[in-house]
Order: sequence, then C-alpha cells, then structure tokens
Amino acid sequence: MKLSRYFLKTTKTVSDDDKNVSAKLLKQAGFIRESVAGRYYFLPIGQRVQQKIMAIVKEEMDAAGAQEMLAPILHPLELWQETNRTNTTGFELMKVKDRRGAEFALGGTAEEMFVDLIRKFTISYRDLPFHLYQFSPKFRDELRSRGGLLRVREFIMKDGYSFHADEKDFQREYESMKNTYSRIFDRLGLKTIIVEADNGYIGGEYCHEFIVESEAGESRYFTTPDGSIAAHEDVAKFKRDPANAGAEMLPMQTIEQPAWVQTMEDNVKHYGKPASHYPKNVVYRNTVTGQIVIAALTGDLQVNKTKLEQVLKAVGQLEAAGEEDLAKLGTKTGYVHSWGHAGAYYVGDSVLEHARNLIGGQKEETTDTINVNHGRDFTCDLIADIALAYEGAVAPDGQKYLEKKGIEVGNVFQLGLHYSSKMKGAVFTDAQGCDQPFYMGCYGIGIGRSMAAVVEKHNDAKGIIWPESVSPFQVHLIALDGGFEEAVRIYDEMLKAGIEVLYDDRDKAAGEKFADADLIGIPLRVVVSKKTVEQGSVEIKKRGESDAKLISFSDVAGLLK
Amino acid sequence: MKLSRYFLKTTKTVSDDDKNVSAKLLKQAGFIRESVAGRYYFLPIGQRVQQKIMAIVKEEMDAAGAQEMLAPILHPLELWQETNRTNTTGFELMKVKDRRGAEFALGGTAEEMFVDLIRKFTISYRDLPFHLYQFSPKFRDELRSRGGLLRVREFIMKDGYSFHADEKDFQREYESMKNTYSRIFDRLGLKTIIVEADNGYIGGEYCHEFIVESEAGESRYFTTPDGSIAAHEDVAKFKRDPANAGAEMLPMQTIEQPAWVQTMEDNVKHYGKPASHYPKNVVYRNTVTGQIVIAALTGDLQVNKTKLEQVLKAVGQLEAAGEEDLAKLGTKTGYVHSWGHAGAYYVGDSVLEHARNLIGGQKEETTDTINVNHGRDFTCDLIADIALAYEGAVAPDGQKYLEKKGIEVGNVFQLGLHYSSKMKGAVFTDAQGCDQPFYMGCYGIGIGRSMAAVVEKHNDAKGIIWPESVSPFQVHLIALDGGFEEAVRIYDEMLKAGIEVLYDDRDKAAGEKFADADLIGIPLRVVVSKKTVEQGSVEIKKRGESDAKLISFSDVAGLLK
Repeated sequence: MKLSRYFLKTTKTVSDDDKNVSAKLLKQAGFIRESVAGRYYFLPIGQRVQQKIMAIVKEEMDAAGAQEMLAPILHPLELWQETNRTNTTGFELMKVKDRRGAEFALGGTAEEMFVDLIRKFTISYRDLPFHLYQFSPKFRDELRSRGGLLRVREFIMKDGYSFHADEKDFQREYESMKNTYSRIFDRLGLKTIIVEADNGYIGGEYCHEFIVESEAGESRYFTTPDGSIAAHEDVAKFKRDPANAGAEMLPMQTIEQPAWVQTMEDNVKHYGKPASHYPKNVVYRNTVTGQIVIAALTGDLQVNKTKLEQVLKAVGQLEAAGEEDLAKLGTKTGYVHSWGHAGAYYVGDSVLEHARNLIGGQKEETTDTINVNHGRDFTCDLIADIALAYEGAVAPDGQKYLEKKGIEVGNVFQLGLHYSSKMKGAVFTDAQGCDQPFYMGCYGIGIGRSMAAVVEKHNDAKGIIWPESVSPFQVHLIALDGGFEEAVRIYDEMLKAGIEVLYDDRDKAAGEKFADADLIGIPLRVVVSKKTVEQGSVEIKKRGESDAKLISFSDVAGLLK
Repeated sequence: MKLSRYFLKTTKTVSDDDKNVSAKLLKQAGFIRESVAGRYYFLPIGQRVQQKIMAIVKEEMDAAGAQEMLAPILHPLELWQETNRTNTTGFELMKVKDRRGAEFALGGTAEEMFVDLIRKFTISYRDLPFHLYQFSPKFRDELRSRGGLLRVREFIMKDGYSFHADEKDFQREYESMKNTYSRIFDRLGLKTIIVEADNGYIGGEYCHEFIVESEAGESRYFTTPDGSIAAHEDVAKFKRDPANAGAEMLPMQTIEQPAWVQTMEDNVKHYGKPASHYPKNVVYRNTVTGQIVIAALTGDLQVNKTKLEQVLKAVGQLEAAGEEDLAKLGTKTGYVHSWGHAGAYYVGDSVLEHARNLIGGQKEETTDTINVNHGRDFTCDLIADIALAYEGAVAPDGQKYLEKKGIEVGNVFQLGLHYSSKMKGAVFTDAQGCDQPFYMGCYGIGIGRSMAAVVEKHNDAKGIIWPESVSPFQVHLIALDGGFEEAVRIYDEMLKAGIEVLYDDRDKAAGEKFADADLIGIPLRVVVSKKTVEQGSVEIKKRGESDAKLISFSDVAGLLK
C-alpha cells in the first residue's frame, strides 16, 4: 500500500479524554477515530489489525472444533423476558421498537439467541456436544465510556456457546477453551492471567476472566505470590481477622459517647482500637423489589456489592440507599444500627461470627453500645461472605494477596442449566428417548479491547510496537531523496512475494517519515536513500531496537521468508 | 468437516412463507434459519458461503483501490438531521435512545457517518480521490419482509463511499466501480444487467442498479431488445402516444352523460374510444407538508409515484389521498376534476401537451366536458414526465420495451455535492488553498441477497448447485457401507492437500446421503463404497450432471488441482 494513496493520517494532538496510552497512540497513529463517546471508527490500518486478531481467534476456535455462524443483532425482547434478563438493571441493554411495535434488544450477549436457534431443531444426544460462535457487534449502554477501545459502547465480540449432554462433557470443553484462549492471547502477544470471576448478569455458577496485567485496566484482582490463586475482586475469598477472636463475651452495655464521635476514624481515635473493633452497616435498596438491605461487617472491611448481590440472588439490582430510604427506617447516615430497623434485611459478613465484644451497633447522639456480640446481642438474617478482599489479606491457602489491575480481554462461563431450564424446549433427546436440558457454557473475547491491550503492552515513547502476528503490515518501506526509484522496485518485488508492505512514497522530510514509522509501529522498517542506493543496499531496523543495519539489495527478498 | 460433528441439519419441511426457491432451499439445506420475520441466522455452512462472497467482494474492491474500514452501527441522529434524511418517510430508519438521552439511527446506509469521519481530518486535494468501504450490518424497518434473504430487515452490506475533487474524477471511479461490480457478480455466478435507477432517499442525481433477472425479484425494469437501454420502472422514459395528436382543437362543451359512466372502462364503453382519450386524475397528499397534489394524465397511463416525488423534490413523502382529503377539495373518488380544485397542486404528465380534444375533466353526476385541451381549457401548475412505462412502450431510441423482473444485488450512486453541501466542514483544500466541497459517490452490495440470487439461478428439483467460487466446500465426500475406512483416508489426504471437504461419515442410508448431497449442492460428490473399494476407486459426480464415473484412488489427489 502506498502511503500517498492510503487513508492514514497521523496526528500530533490528542484529546484530554484519551487518558490511556492505547487510546492516545491508536488515535495519533491513525488506527481509530471516535464518532461519539464510546463509538469508534476503525480506519483502514486499524481495521487490518482488527481483522488479523479475528483471523487468529477464528483459526484457534476452528482448530478446537468450534463452528462459526452468525446470529441477528436485534434480539426479540421476548427471549430476554423468558430468562428474566430484562430486569437486570446492572446490564446495560439497549432496546428498540420497530414500526409494527415489535420490541428488540440490541445484542449485548447472545445466550438466548443461540438457545432459541438450537431449540428450533430436533437435537439428539448423538449430535452433542457442539460449540457455535460468531464475530458480531455488541452494544452496551454504559453510562461512562473511557477514551480508546478499553471500555466502549459498541464493539466486535467473538462470542461462543457450547451445548453438552452433561457437566462432565462441559468441563472438558471448558478446559479446552481455557487452553484455546491462552494460545490465542499468546499469539496476540498478550500474557494473560486466568482469574476466577463473577458470572454477573450472564448467570451460571462460575467463570474465569483472561486478564492482561495493566494499570490501564479496570479489572481489580488478587493473586498470591506463587500465582496459585488468582481471583477477581468481585469473588476473591480471604480469611477474616476478627477482633478479639476467641475472647470471652463481656456483658453488653450502653455507655456515654461524645457527640463528636461520628466516623470510623473518630471511633478509632476515641477508643484507641483498630477499625476491626467496630460494627459497620451499609444500606442498599433493591431497585426491583424495593427491599432495604443492611450489609453488616466490621470497620476494617468494605462491602463487596457483587458478592452481596449474588448471595441475595439480586444480580445488578442493589443501589446505595439514599437519605430518604434511611429516613423510612427511622435513621440517618452514621446512625444505622446493627439491629432493630424493622423492615430491613440484615446480611452480615462472616467476620461477625468470630468477632467479639465489638464497640458500637446502636449509636445515638451521645450514647452507643459496647461489648456487642453477634449471636447473643443481635443476629443477622443471613451470614455470608460479603466483604472485599484487599492487598495483604490472607488467601484461603494462607498466602498473602497481592492486588493487581488489568484488562479483561476474554472470559469463559459455566452456564450449566441456567438458560436451558428457563427457555422452554431447550432440550435434547437422551439415549433413553427422554428430553433433557442442555448443559451449557459460553465464551467471549473482546476484539477491540484485545487490540487496545496489545498497544498498552507493546509501545515506547515514540509509538506502538506491533507484534508481528497482528501488525497491519510486515514492512514499512521508506523512500528518501535519491531512493524513490529503487524503493518502487523493492516495493513491487515485495508485493510479488506476497509481503504486506506499507510504502511511504510521500514527499516529506526524512524526520517526519521516521517519526510516523515509529508511531505506526510496523515491526520492520526498510529505508532506501541516495546513500544506500550508492552502496547497493537498504537500511533495515526493527521497531523497538535502536540499531539499523545495511543489507544488500539481493538480501531484501529473503528478508521475510 | 465431518458431517456427524457439523451443526448442519437438513429438513424436508418448509413454511408457507418461504415462497421463493432460495428461501426454501437455503432453509431445507440447513444454510439459514429465521429468528423472527426478516431476521436470519446464518448457520455454519451458510456463514461459509457468506464469507466466500465477502472475500470475493473484498478482493475486487481492494484491487480497484478501495480501502476497507469499519464505522459504528449506531449513527448519531444529529447527522441524519443535518442532511434532513430523518424526514424521509419512505426510508425505514430505526431509532434508539441511550440511557443518557442521546439518539441514534440504526445504520441503514452510512453516507453521513463517512462524511462525518472525513471532516474530522484536514484533507488536501493531494489526498483525493479515495474510496472507503466496509462490510457492516444494515437495518431496514420494512413493513413487509419476504421468506428468505431477498428482502430482510437486517443484513450485511458492503457499502463504499468515494471522495473526489470534481465530477470528472468521480465519473472515472463510477465507471471503474461498474466494471468492478460486474466482475464481482460474474465471479459469484451471477449475470447482471446494469439498469438506470432512481436515487430515492440516497440523494444525488443518477444511479445504476445491478440486477439479476429473476421472477423471484422485486425490481421491475425495462430493456430494449438489443439491450442498449435498461431502466428501472421508477425512471424508465418512454414516448407518449397522445390521443388525436396534431388534430385541431374543437370547442369545449359540457354535455349530458349517463350516471352509470363512472370508471375508465365505462367511458371506453360509452364513447367507444380507447383510454388515451380521457383525462385521469390521481390525488396524493404530502405527508410532510400536507400539500394536496393532483397527478393528471390520460386513461391509458399509470402515475409513476417515484417520478412524481422526484419532480416535486418530495422523495418518500407522497401518500395516496383518502376520501377525507378529497372531501376537503369538495370532491370524491371518480369525480376529481382536471382543473378548479382550489388548494391542489396540479402536475400533468407530458402526454397532456399533445393530446387533443379529450373527453372528460369536469365530471358531475350526469354531465362532463368534451373537447378538452391542455393549455387552452386548463393548465397544470407543472408538466413533467410522471408516467409509468409499460411492456411495449416506445423507448427513447424507438425500440419497444420489454418488461423484466429481477433481484437488485448492487447499486452505484452519484451523490455529487448532495451530502458535502449539507454537512458543514465536508471540504478539502484545493490547489489555491480554498475550501471546496467533496464530489461523492456511493456503492452498495447486499451480501445475503447476492447469496439468495445465486441460489435462485443455480438450482434444480433436487436442491442447490453452488458455483465453485462460493460453494461452502469443494468436495462432498460420502462413505457408504464398506467404504468408511478408505473414506477417512481420502478425507485426511484431502485436508492435507488444503481441499475443503465435507465428509458425510454419518450412519445413514445411501439414499438419504445422496439426497442431502444434492440438496446442499457442493459441486463435486465423491462416493466411497464397498464396490468402489474393491475396484481401488471412488465414484465421482458433478452436481448438476447425471453421470457418475469411477476414478482410481491415485487420481483422487489430483482431482482438484
């Protein structure tokens, strides 16, 4: 491709919104351009990269026995109602109505669509298992998007759905897909960590995310130093460190407490004991049922809303309660009691089971209780793991957690019978001739986000450094004064040899051409100038290395074999 | 691909909605399946065909210098307002609002999106021309869809947009694209006719459709016997045959007319002269402005609503007037006058200029006028070509039109300055440093419809007969009793040789396997049975030919080179 004819315009300016490196570089180098927030054009050179990523994903998926197909983008809303997913406020589903009044969801994920397809056929146990996937645009009505391709409102996803006779066969596929995904991301130049995660609005019982460690990412997760455990903050289990564990329960008392003691910090200051010694109550409202939920734990811990929603089977339904909600309970911020608010549902973290003689729980203007013990003085409606892990928390195996940030580029989900049990007719005929629901899994890769992750991991101060596997071109050929004639010859020769070459034939200064080459980031730069021509050679340099070297014309053809 | 593991299920039943051959066969052979009316799943074997079609389109577009990219599917509605296309009721635009209240159109065509992209850059005349295209889902809120892929509500379109400094350069590209499209359709096995057509809601001044002649198609067009003219019914020009042309104007009179004379047929019967002798008035209402339009012609002609809308610059805005509208004019159906309805805008067909001494024009219960002449007794507000051509009508070159039906698989549009003049900043800098609007063209190919057209043209009573270029597989290998072992060997050998082979390894009767092979339509069938194995051979048969022949094992490998 001759650069003079290519719709590729590098730019020096980036907007303040482009906070992450990949957003900046992909825009500056002319790979993407924003339409409106969270919706991107892939310019010709960007689309080449996107297609290379898709080709690698397809190759590995096919090799693993999955079959590509394509489902409609508009999903009949009835299907989402059948599985009750339209109620999940946490999932940003866009809806559209046609002229005849039929309602559709703009595809966010496609579990229902694939199940609906499968149930149109008669499936026997002999047909199982199968795994169908597609590359298809997905829509998310995110309130906030970020600069670049890391969190967008519209993107291409490879989403796959597998159907099995039983859990055992699903688990074989689940392991196979974990391996397939690892291979895919390896080929893209991405080192991924497989992290236990939360199924969220997808449903099912367990899932794993493929995360590229990066400060630009939005996924927080914890690993142990030896890497034996890796868990998303949504699900990370950890050992509690309850105050006065094992101590004798002292008699509960109501005592005077100065009015200035309001916050957890005030308590620590006043009583001189660490935050784990005080109860802490966080109030939520279920936006679907209206129920008020009080999450109870100790001052050293934070509520993990995802765990809390899972425990309550209220995925995506909890919102922080407002002053109005508190007023209905007869209280206000800072004065929520550990027991006694009629109408509220108390969910206590497991730390309460072993913490002893807590200070607080019935705060009034100038009094509070001390020596408060769960099980004696108050009992939550439910005790569960609802706290957020933290750097240094003790993992189940006794190691201490390290906190990490990363980019989630893929995920694999066990769905089990979640969909097949809700959608009528989603069954196969077993060997005995009886109908059985499918055991399912699903598997996603964000194509654009993977592209952004590659850039986050492969760049320097001058620009992108594409791994060969996904580079838009193999060679960036530059002609300088006195080298144009020879460069054209080399360009034609490379094209004939099937080498993908971007040829900078523009009438620009050498400095500008070099800067663009560094910014665009094609792995191999070949320069033809008066000087090199005189020596019967070209100058080659690998992107990311500083040393250029001269090789003779005759060696150019062999360069990429 | 082993058929036992492939998600491919042929079926004998088709729904009554599947009226056309391609709908029936693609569904029966397991290529597509309907989600809801007009929205289709492409099953794995169907998606293979779709991808082969896209690959051919891409190859030819790239060879012609166009550059693939990808634009968002949700278009900010402001852009469509900028060009005033949201007002065009004839265009079935779906709209969606996000949580923050931003409105979007679901991409129907993407002129505005591409112009909006381009104006984000500084473009110099040196950058021109360029042609950008994409493969992208398109949405049409059609009131009616038809079985199969011929008219759907969601489909993949290859849409391209070219930008030029002037008309001359655009015309070069327009011709180049006509050639490119002809080559593409040739490669798909489709013989296309390039037909002059109407720009409709796309805008611009002229366009051409690529039509595959077929009774299953919805495009009506006219050709001359020698093929020198081919024009869509929307635009086909023809010579009028006015009544009494050249005759002296007789004095207009009001005469008694029996009450039973109501329709055109009654007139013909009563006066004994052909339909061309009577004025005919058809009333429309502009749904945007409310204006009442009376289209005036003679009884032998039909109003061409597309021509009428173009003449009035009211594309997609006219609707047949109702009795209420007529009442407001002080008339009713059958009694619309050729002149005198205050508030109505009269558009006369050019036939009125030369027709003489017409009978009618002021019909009352028992009277009417005769010897009515346009220009003397009444004068339309506008005279224009607003009549529909017909089989046998005289083309501008004097030949007689043949009426044809066909499937529109592609189109090329001159857009001129239609978009760049309306969208602020859609300019390039010319050699003098002045801003100039882009001269534009756009070019579309419906991928799914092309696939349906291929099937409409390539089938027999047993099923589809895919052209090699788009066949999902090259070989359909069938193992029969006693041939499985040898078939697996041949299958593996073919895979190694890079041959795309569908291997029917199922435990089914020979008859069922043959029937499926005929239905699926892969060009070459290879059968391995006890009999052939004993002879050290396989049986090969081309789909569409009736004779099978035996070739020896050693010749199989060479079969597809």
